[in-house]
Amino acid sequence: MPRRDFAGQNCAIADTLGLVGERWTLMIIREILLGRRRFREIQRQTGVAPNILADRLQTLVDAEILRRVGDEPEYRPTRKAVDLQPVLLMLMEWGNKHVPREMGPPRAIYHAACEHEAHPYVVCDHCGEHLDPRETALRPGPGADEAQRADGTIPQPRAA
Amino acid sequence: MPRRDFAGQNCAIADTLGLVGERWTLMIIREILLGRRRFREIQRQTGVAPNILADRLQTLVDAEILRRVGDEPEYRPTRKAVDLQPVLLMLMEWGNKHVPREMGPPRAIYHAACEHEAHPYVVCDHCGEHLDPRETALRPGPGADEAQRADGTIPQPRAA
Repeated sequence: MPRRDFAGQNCAIADTLGLVGERWTLMIIREILLGRRRFREIQRQTGVAPNILADRLQTLVDAEILRRVGDEPEYRPTRKAVDLQPVLLMLMEWGNKHVPREMGPPRAIYHAACEHEAHPYVVCDHCGEHLDPRETALRPGPGADEAQRADGTIPQPRAA
Repeated sequence: MPRRDFAGQNCAIADTLGLVGERWTLMIIREILLGRRRFREIQRQTGVAPNILADRLQTLVDAEILRRVGDEPEYRPTRKAVDLQPVLLMLMEWGNKHVPREMGPPRAIYHAACEHEAHPYVVCDHCGEHLDPRETALRPGPGADEAQRADGTIPQPRAA
């Protein structure tokens, strides 16, 4: 069962982390995106303890992020798993930038559409431009509670 | 101290999660991006236990993701913290899409540059087009180990 400490918050980030924010869960999603489908394979690749892996997979199946298929089960990604790919790509970018390795990045992202290596960044769907934190703010949404409404518009911080 | 179970892996995602993948850490970064700077404020907003918050903040300071400033300390974001913003935006997008709330999103992203609400997505820095998982693959990078080289090019999965 997922722990529910995050559930009392009126926050979409907390909602997501309530499902995939447990230790190891994003590593399991990584393996799924690398094409591993079986318990033993994921266990070997990550080194996670079997009882923890079983728990995390059950949470992901319950949340319909993975589908368990067959008697010797495969764990297959649903749309919800594929939609986590951008999160993992941005975690990978961050690691390559801020925890650099002497030999360079272990893996590269290849964009088949343009046949080039890609370094992803996030853009605004309205204008298509980079969502630079210096030009981005958080605002109360339609589901904001009273405290969030009182926060008003919060510009994103600059680096100190 | 960050736990080191992820450190033996030759993986940029593991490197990142080794620093920010503990339970609560990304919620603390969320608070920093919402402009909260003080221990009590972050504690009140997240509901995290004080001993856990102290541990996570120390990890973030050690990793130079936050700077601790002053006697009654403020925790200020460095470039490394600001560079985590895309991760948090994509976690927020995922939550709004897949864990929808009756009243709608609690918070909205505002792009000051074009003066519109933004729904972020990731693009390829080479061609500027959406990095659709169906057109994306992972390949061995310059720092790949033998097993990663043997993996070759791994297309990203489709939703089952």
